[in-house]
Amino acid sequence: MPEKPSAVILLSGGLDSTTVLAIATSEGYACNCLSFDYGQKQTVELAKAAKIAAIYGVERHLILRLDLDRIGGSALTADIAVPKNGNPDRQGTIPITYVPARNAILLAHAVAWAEVLGAWDIFIGVNAVDYSGYPDCRPEFLAAFAHMANLGTRAGISGAARFSIKAPLMHLSKAEIITKGISLGVDYSLTHSCYDPQGTKACGHCDACILRRNGFVAAGVADPTDYL
Amino acid sequence: MPEKPSAVILLSGGLDSTTVLAIATSEGYACNCLSFDYGQKQTVELAKAAKIAAIYGVERHLILRLDLDRIGGSALTADIAVPKNGNPDRQGTIPITYVPARNAILLAHAVAWAEVLGAWDIFIGVNAVDYSGYPDCRPEFLAAFAHMANLGTRAGISGAARFSIKAPLMHLSKAEIITKGISLGVDYSLTHSCYDPQGTKACGHCDACILRRNGFVAAGVADPTDYL
Repeated sequence: MPEKPSAVILLSGGLDSTTVLAIATSEGYACNCLSFDYGQKQTVELAKAAKIAAIYGVERHLILRLDLDRIGGSALTADIAVPKNGNPDRQGTIPITYVPARNAILLAHAVAWAEVLGAWDIFIGVNAVDYSGYPDCRPEFLAAFAHMANLGTRAGISGAARFSIKAPLMHLSKAEIITKGISLGVDYSLTHSCYDPQGTKACGHCDACILRRNGFVAAGVADPTDYL
Repeated sequence: MPEKPSAVILLSGGLDSTTVLAIATSEGYACNCLSFDYGQKQTVELAKAAKIAAIYGVERHLILRLDLDRIGGSALTADIAVPKNGNPDRQGTIPITYVPARNAILLAHAVAWAEVLGAWDIFIGVNAVDYSGYPDCRPEFLAAFAHMANLGTRAGISGAARFSIKAPLMHLSKAEIITKGISLGVDYSLTHSCYDPQGTKACGHCDACILRRNGFVAAGVADPTDYL
């Protein structure tokens, strides 16, 4: 039997990235999960990520420290209130929860680790709901990132293969993501989405909670989230 | 008098990046220096960077922590010996001191900070000697990086301006860099290049020391380095 190909999976511990891990696992990848303690308010997601990685029996799970809170500029990393009860259908405006260059920073680490592991495929859980608001969730950004990574790494210029940034949720709504995850056996009670949790409880009113809650309703699936 | 434009300067504390800081200062930029404690063996360079930033009276100096030593894959971050007494004219081979995706990671942080500061110009001290060996020091990588950054950030897609990655040393030899720096008053005794220092003393035999030493000889300038 041929060896499984290795992949690096960006795993925040959220609904989307956990679904991506389930997809990559179902596609036969040996999964190496990468999470970041980047100064986010919702560090509770890291314990969720560790538990999820353990349940999926991944090859490796690395949690790296970044100082994005010292750069700031976002409601997730600076002393800026997380908006509540807004309309998360952003229609082209970028929410204050945008973290400057976050996906470029996270993906660059993923490429570095992939290079060390001999992996070529990097999975990220961005999707249509996100990319209506966040510039670093759009397909054109991911294509430009892959091009840059293939020019700026030893592996990329080796000619052996090309780094590929895989975003299997890109064109799915939240409800479609949940339906896909359920079909793969994902236990969403393990996941965390809230931007502004109190302890392990979700606030229920930030954009992430609203999108998650609406997604479960639209998918016709009971929402296992522990809201305040 | 119009306000000075802001720039982010990647400052390692080495000969090249210090020369870049002198160039950016001479060009009238308000300089914001960014350094990284990334798990490198030569952390002594960070104290040098702090002293240099203070002497230049920069606007801000930020030293961010990264866990690149937990990714490894390089003689600078992992338990791999730094090569000594080699020929640093690499002729297309990539040395073991290459750090996977380092410049992508560092530049992505620089873009994040630039976005918060309202800066558009990012300076990096890569040069022809480096880009003969390191893929992430080549002009084509920097161009691809800038393209990616302009697609993946709020500032980049705003249309107000474009991020520009400036590499004023790109086509200079080490001797030409030193000559340029001397003309701008750089005190190279403040700078550190060695990959494998003992305390504050340079080993004198790694690629960085050999290139530095040869550069001073070729420039006809006394080498102020404190070698072992």
